[in-house]
Amino acid sequence: MSRKTNRTVYLNGEYLPEGEAKVSIFDRGFLMADGVYEVTSVLGGKLLDFDGHAVRLERSLGELDMAAPISKEDLLEGHRELVRLNDINDGMIYLQITRGAPDDRDFVFPDPNETPSTIVLFTQNKPGMADSPVAKVGLKVISIEDQRWGRRDIKTVQLLYPSMGKMMAKAAGVDDAWLVEDGVVTEGTSNNAYIVKGGKIITRHLSNEILHGITRKAVLRFAREAQMEVEERAFTIEEAQGADEAFITSASTFVMPVVEVDGAAVGTGTPGPVAARLREIYLEESRKAAI
Amino acid sequence: MSRKTNRTVYLNGEYLPEGEAKVSIFDRGFLMADGVYEVTSVLGGKLLDFDGHAVRLERSLGELDMAAPISKEDLLEGHRELVRLNDINDGMIYLQITRGAPDDRDFVFPDPNETPSTIVLFTQNKPGMADSPVAKVGLKVISIEDQRWGRRDIKTVQLLYPSMGKMMAKAAGVDDAWLVEDGVVTEGTSNNAYIVKGGKIITRHLSNEILHGITRKAVLRFAREAQMEVEERAFTIEEAQGADEAFITSASTFVMPVVEVDGAAVGTGTPGPVAARLREIYLEESRKAAI
Repeated sequence: MSRKTNRTVYLNGEYLPEGEAKVSIFDRGFLMADGVYEVTSVLGGKLLDFDGHAVRLERSLGELDMAAPISKEDLLEGHRELVRLNDINDGMIYLQITRGAPDDRDFVFPDPNETPSTIVLFTQNKPGMADSPVAKVGLKVISIEDQRWGRRDIKTVQLLYPSMGKMMAKAAGVDDAWLVEDGVVTEGTSNNAYIVKGGKIITRHLSNEILHGITRKAVLRFAREAQMEVEERAFTIEEAQGADEAFITSASTFVMPVVEVDGAAVGTGTPGPVAARLREIYLEESRKAAI
Repeated sequence: MSRKTNRTVYLNGEYLPEGEAKVSIFDRGFLMADGVYEVTSVLGGKLLDFDGHAVRLERSLGELDMAAPISKEDLLEGHRELVRLNDINDGMIYLQITRGAPDDRDFVFPDPNETPSTIVLFTQNKPGMADSPVAKVGLKVISIEDQRWGRRDIKTVQLLYPSMGKMMAKAAGVDDAWLVEDGVVTEGTSNNAYIVKGGKIITRHLSNEILHGITRKAVLRFAREAQMEVEERAFTIEEAQGADEAFITSASTFVMPVVEVDGAAVGTGTPGPVAARLREIYLEESRKAAI
């Protein structure tokens, strides 16, 4: 996975050794975080919910007045070609699109006819990622203040605070952080957050305050199909600490139990049956529908 | 100024033609907005308040647990060499430092011993920038909601929202936007905001909510030395509309009058005497102290 392994990556229509994949210092992704991204998982050499990611990408681009610089078909072809070239059985494909590299730095958006977008795709090889032993143990999280900008529904590369949050978690000896705003949890640093109480799955409702998780959408659908009760509303850290179970979802962790919040065990302090069941259903259904 | 002109830029110790200055797609500045910047003005071939920018840069790096990858002396040498190579009489020097390009994308910070920072410097030539005719006319601004993250005191490259704000201003047919949070102005998209009422200069107090402007600091010092009254507190848009004058400060605009806020003329709707006087003092004193 390191640059020593010489992955092949995709940059603006070309397949290149990763060490040669470079962008201009004037790229607005580099100078102004003016870019969006998606991460799609690969299991058994096939893409999980590619359509969901493509639809969200299109929405992110639209919210930022960026034209879609590549068709969904070409994007799919790029993903598949990288899976093939890098021999990925299980892993992730990262996609980033920025507003390109104009002639000079300027807060005003460049004319898209003069400045083509930058498109980057690369793979991350994660053999056996669906059988992660972490799912058997669960994650410990701390809560931190949500300091991010107001449009978390747009999947931009403004990831400095989530990155700082992971470092705060690491410093506290735990795995991740849940972000709290106005007394309630928004989401995890790079995942959606859930609690289970009395058999009911509770997760924050969609708004500009949280990412509209592709895995979240699928998991909630599977939960409802399995006759589980779902309530979409904000919850507090105290409520999470008093819940029967907690878990997160994301494209790369699927469904992952959370067993401790701010030092307090959730439920029995071990992964609960609802998270385990949802993980099983999600992986099974996603594998079936993978392309 | 365009890439057609072939500026020489600085990248990680090398002086390169701008078209050859490229960073890895794995650079954390590109993938995660994990970088900080400064913009220093040049007048008469000399740097304005280089020390102030160097001190703030060090603070930004410290807040993000990034080591300073270059000494102040080498930074000054880099700035001066670019002024010389690009024959800059009046203009700006842009500096960006990111947490570098680790082997792979990860929210966890890379080990700084394995991943050196990325350092970029480039010039922008602006002949006669101190005599900008805009200063005689003044700027029109609109107010927009402040959607930025919570640590605006750290000068990070998370500039997507300020960039969107400039586009909103453009769409409204004006020059810039003032950001409003909890009913009061924080600052402009890339500048600090001021009003003048009854001879008193009012500008928001320093906190994590605004950039600690280098020009702000100098202008307030000059104002106090000239026996002008200064009050550091938040103000509303209504207060700005009812003020005698308004203006902004930044490293590249110095002191610039604001004559209209959300469609309402400020004072006479023309640049006022306080802003004009402060601009004059700032330019005179800064030129004297330039290095």
